[in-house]
Amino acid sequence: MSRRPLITALETHDIRFPTSRELDGSDAMNPDPDYSAAYVILRTDAAIEGHGFAFTIGRGNDVQTAAIKALAPFVVGRRLDDLGALYKEMVHDSQLRWLGPEKGVMHMAISAVVNALWDLKAKIEGKPLWLLLGEMAPEEIVSLVDFRYLSDAITQREALDILRRAEPGRAERIARLRSGGYAAYTTSPGWLGYDDDKLRRLCKEAMDLGFTQIKLKVGADLRDDRRRMRIAREVCGPGFRIAIDANQRWDVGSAIEWVNELKEFEPYWVEEPTSPDDVLGHAVIARALAPIKVATGEHVQNRVVFKQMLQAGSLSILQIDSARVGGVNENIAILLLAAKFGVPVCPHAGGVGLCELVQHLAMFDYVAVSGSAQDRVIEYVDHLHEHFVDPVVIENGRYQAPEAPGFSAAMRPESIAEYAYPGGPVWLGAGSEALESL
Amino acid sequence: MSRRPLITALETHDIRFPTSRELDGSDAMNPDPDYSAAYVILRTDAAIEGHGFAFTIGRGNDVQTAAIKALAPFVVGRRLDDLGALYKEMVHDSQLRWLGPEKGVMHMAISAVVNALWDLKAKIEGKPLWLLLGEMAPEEIVSLVDFRYLSDAITQREALDILRRAEPGRAERIARLRSGGYAAYTTSPGWLGYDDDKLRRLCKEAMDLGFTQIKLKVGADLRDDRRRMRIAREVCGPGFRIAIDANQRWDVGSAIEWVNELKEFEPYWVEEPTSPDDVLGHAVIARALAPIKVATGEHVQNRVVFKQMLQAGSLSILQIDSARVGGVNENIAILLLAAKFGVPVCPHAGGVGLCELVQHLAMFDYVAVSGSAQDRVIEYVDHLHEHFVDPVVIENGRYQAPEAPGFSAAMRPESIAEYAYPGGPVWLGAGSEALESL
Repeated sequence: MSRRPLITALETHDIRFPTSRELDGSDAMNPDPDYSAAYVILRTDAAIEGHGFAFTIGRGNDVQTAAIKALAPFVVGRRLDDLGALYKEMVHDSQLRWLGPEKGVMHMAISAVVNALWDLKAKIEGKPLWLLLGEMAPEEIVSLVDFRYLSDAITQREALDILRRAEPGRAERIARLRSGGYAAYTTSPGWLGYDDDKLRRLCKEAMDLGFTQIKLKVGADLRDDRRRMRIAREVCGPGFRIAIDANQRWDVGSAIEWVNELKEFEPYWVEEPTSPDDVLGHAVIARALAPIKVATGEHVQNRVVFKQMLQAGSLSILQIDSARVGGVNENIAILLLAAKFGVPVCPHAGGVGLCELVQHLAMFDYVAVSGSAQDRVIEYVDHLHEHFVDPVVIENGRYQAPEAPGFSAAMRPESIAEYAYPGGPVWLGAGSEALESL
Repeated sequence: MSRRPLITALETHDIRFPTSRELDGSDAMNPDPDYSAAYVILRTDAAIEGHGFAFTIGRGNDVQTAAIKALAPFVVGRRLDDLGALYKEMVHDSQLRWLGPEKGVMHMAISAVVNALWDLKAKIEGKPLWLLLGEMAPEEIVSLVDFRYLSDAITQREALDILRRAEPGRAERIARLRSGGYAAYTTSPGWLGYDDDKLRRLCKEAMDLGFTQIKLKVGADLRDDRRRMRIAREVCGPGFRIAIDANQRWDVGSAIEWVNELKEFEPYWVEEPTSPDDVLGHAVIARALAPIKVATGEHVQNRVVFKQMLQAGSLSILQIDSARVGGVNENIAILLLAAKFGVPVCPHAGGVGLCELVQHLAMFDYVAVSGSAQDRVIEYVDHLHEHFVDPVVIENGRYQAPEAPGFSAAMRPESIAEYAYPGGPVWLGAGSEALESL
């Protein structure tokens, strides 16, 4: 097969799951999400496709889909080539960058297309993405990164040094991933919409399944949070890692006060205590709450904000997201930054297909960047995996290394059809009215 | 007339001006912009409309327009009511905020709709917006602001105190604006696409027209910048304020080196030296280049980033933009922050209609917030004003206070038709091919 197939079409789908009907995924800021994907398929002249998507939680998924469609001229009619150059071409487009730059809808659209290109490339190479990246030469990896705005924190030379230092152990770490997988933690017990019995049962289940960490959503009501944390601590016992997640609910002062009220239950980290844009605010919170760790990243818009968070000590757990920043390429930059600053990366996942994607990035980090699995866990949420062609496999609380070629991004055709919005069978009827009402 | 007309429709237009044909508006990051507006008209059951828009520079204006359309359910079928509550409803929508939060395409869309609502409200009240706001009670002004994520820098109480302190002089300042206007500076001489003779001529013209400050685009080529700065300084003479604008071209280190090479020509401020997201980077640059001032804001995404820039000393000139953050309401928050930190606001303008809008905000600031005109100038660019129903009026280098009711946002119907993209007469033919080619 040619390694440079011609991309013949960029096809988009607005796919929405009516998750608000069950309150799966409910938290202090997102009471009724309908987990959605602005989905893209790159068709080629070979018998192979690249799939990617941006994750949203309902309204606006049409806008996100339109933004992906606007990127068609960058890829359609072109041969799959240097993905460093193509990524930079999209990010640096002088007219499109006005819509960001490098943030929000347009940047997430770039993410979806870049990830679809990587899915395509990994399929062509016949490898799962984590392995494709994990076997690349340091020089090639560095060429994928846009160092603009980063040079005061990490230079190309420093990045190369980090990658070269990790080279000797690569083969051993690849083998370890293939035999034992990568540690996961689960958020499934912790949604705000669940009652105490369900919380208790799911905490117990999480431990039985081999997870060594869970996470609870907090921030809506302090008394509820104290009761739920007490239950979780009782079930899980002392020392078991229980993270809490406020989903940006607080101002700086209230974050500190609120978490102090939960201190006796020993939260391991507090996630998204305030605005994801507030580098300085996170730094104040981190200093005030130590030794409780501050974790953030799922809504951090790009590498420039991550850079500052590392410079300012705003976080001690860095949570990459596979589909918010500019896709694989920008996530490599962020992994390099984290390695430079010695901060462990614990990816955000859940949503639609985020587990499927981000496992590849965490495993690549372990193989070729940080070279470490210490204090690193990938989030796991057991929602919606049945819609994917190569769903994640969790055993003994660990992500098993994917072996299928690609980025595990492809959704099953039946799911794409069934959950199409607003015309799919799931949305014809009462559901669509509920979604459209404000 | 009822003061609460029913909003019956939200209508959008993709309007693009082929400015790249003339190199008006060319700078180091934006070599060939086609100045564009994602334009919105709110129709009502009264004989009155609200107009607003987001400014873009070409590609992606369709995405921006789609994002505005997605906000229709928030306004259509509703009566014009409390604009504080309605603004917060849009910004806090739990599903839409996933697309930001509060940044990029979705936030600019909110800006367009919020500004159109204010245009409508000011027309109903029969006042230009600056006066409508400038005569509001401090309590009412504060109710328009979303203080979420701001309380570590400014509380509602502090905001109220600032506004109350400015109350006594309001009438006098309103009278002064009506007689003498508000100081402007001009960017017209400084575009990179112009040759030296044109630069020289336009510098001279700017002084003859009564402007007391000009601005040059820099950052593409250091030798060119030195030559152009030398010419401008020669024409304008010592002490005349010449600002320079790099449009985000540099990393932190190169910003400092480059501007040091221009120091002998005494730039008054350096604008957008690096990424608008880099709060800490701007702070490093500001410390290194003092007493040259750092100015930024046209691409600062929201009040949370402005807050940090003030906290960190990243800027000493704050440049609000009328159509990037969440419209009038969020700009009031930013004006209050600037007043709290004692930093002068010198609005960004130019583009399509940004002068028309932002003059109202600067004048409101003078009347009711900062109460000061010291070191404050509104940018002026003499492009595209002929397309507006109530274009800005500049006399003796000063914006004359608008008197027509509304926000000066309405474009002439003939211009909306002529520059419609891709179907308008201007785009039928060779022009549209040029725009679509990458």
